[in-house]
Amino acid sequence: MYQLFIADKNYSSWSLRPWLLLTELGIPFTEQQSRFDGPVNHTKFRHFAPNGKVPCLHHDSDVIWESLAIIEYLAERHPGVWPADSKARTFARCVASEMHAGFSNLRGTCPMSVGIRIKLHQISPALQADLDRISELWQQGLQQFGGPFLAGSAFSAVDAFFAPVAFRVQSYGLPLPAAAQAYVDRLLQLPGMMAWQQAALADPYREPSHEAEPLRHGLLVADLRL
Amino acid sequence: MYQLFIADKNYSSWSLRPWLLLTELGIPFTEQQSRFDGPVNHTKFRHFAPNGKVPCLHHDSDVIWESLAIIEYLAERHPGVWPADSKARTFARCVASEMHAGFSNLRGTCPMSVGIRIKLHQISPALQADLDRISELWQQGLQQFGGPFLAGSAFSAVDAFFAPVAFRVQSYGLPLPAAAQAYVDRLLQLPGMMAWQQAALADPYREPSHEAEPLRHGLLVADLRL
Ligand SMILES: N[C@@H](CCC(=O)N[C@@H](CS)C(=O)NCC(=O)O)C(=O)O
Ligand SMILES: N[C@@H](CCC(=O)N[C@@H](CS)C(=O)NCC(=O)O)C(=O)O
Repeated sequence: MYQLFIADKNYSSWSLRPWLLLTELGIPFTEQQSRFDGPVNHTKFRHFAPNGKVPCLHHDSDVIWESLAIIEYLAERHPGVWPADSKARTFARCVASEMHAGFSNLRGTCPMSVGIRIKLHQISPALQADLDRISELWQQGLQQFGGPFLAGSAFSAVDAFFAPVAFRVQSYGLPLPAAAQAYVDRLLQLPGMMAWQQAALADPYREPSHEAEPLRHGLLVADLRL
Repeated sequence: MYQLFIADKNYSSWSLRPWLLLTELGIPFTEQQSRFDGPVNHTKFRHFAPNGKVPCLHHDSDVIWESLAIIEYLAERHPGVWPADSKARTFARCVASEMHAGFSNLRGTCPMSVGIRIKLHQISPALQADLDRISELWQQGLQQFGGPFLAGSAFSAVDAFFAPVAFRVQSYGLPLPAAAQAYVDRLLQLPGMMAWQQAALADPYREPSHEAEPLRHGLLVADLRL
């Protein structure tokens, strides 16, 4: 049985990726949720994850940390993690890898906080460049492989990698071309995304540093959490 | 035939990874070298790489960018890219993924410049934390899988991912525990590493921003380049 260690659903963008993949593919797992106590939780998370971060997957005697490694581990054991088509799979891996180490302006300016709505003071050129690149990648995937997902007709790991972007677009009202916005809407309507969002909204826990961070870049216009 | 697009061997740490892997595994490829013109080369590199970065692999009609995606692409086509043993392969992927998005203090303070020797003004706590984590990962891999490489007896992609660290340790005289230093020495003695270093030392090209960066953190004590 898979055990997936994650953190607070409202905040933890990395946790969402493998959680959504497992959920959408119908792979059974149990969820072990820890709470963020501050911006850094290395010591606490070291109890279950060698890198002191979430997500971390436990399976039999294996401990797998880092979201991309978790996904490759699952891909060795279950069909559908990556697309079966070689060209689509190659594209999906390139894009997931680019997401894994990139888009630092989007991540820094618009930290994930599922239940809040923010009006950004500005869209900086660096943030716009990240949004442009994301739209470009999405458009390429949707066109080349026919949609409605990034690497074809089925949801796969590359869509899971962009799931936190969908919540960010929703929270910060980020402007996107129509086709990209339609893809965001499709992601937000996935059963797994709706379940994650519902859990995030229902959680009364507030971690101060994660609450403060989004307010550095804009005005709070709504908080949909309980 | 594989065509690998890379940048200047003295500076380009990401280029080194797939280049060394292809070289050590004896997979034939041709090398397409571009020059850095400044700190950012997006427009220039977009001619061959969709993300505007090196490395980028071309193969038949496939274009594969991002070093981790290049490695998974090669792993689907050649034995030995990842270890055959499942536990070793899982570990190797976790570690390569952690390297791919992490160790920003080491990367920021000690940019790769193969031919120079620097005495750092100080080892900051953040840099020391990166070195500690790297030593820990290496020690774990070497012990668990028996060495002399990180995931067992054969050189694999996870070693390629740390090849730039070996050059950084050499250039900046970074302090490491004996077992970690011995591993660095083994990497530096690989035929592929010696060939890359020789080419870096023989190249008369100097890119000003890449020359200036290492001097922000320490004193130049030697320049072994022509
Ligand atoms: N590269 C990692 C990133 C994981 C990550 O940064 N997780 C955050 C939470 S979303 C974390 O655990 N932060 C706690 C800390 O750094 O102490 C992955 O792909 O899994
Ligand atoms: N995540 C990328 C990193 C590639 C990267 O940052 N490459 C650097 C050179 S070592 C580059 O091309 N920089 C040029 C630029 O950013 O304009 C990978 O894994 O391939």
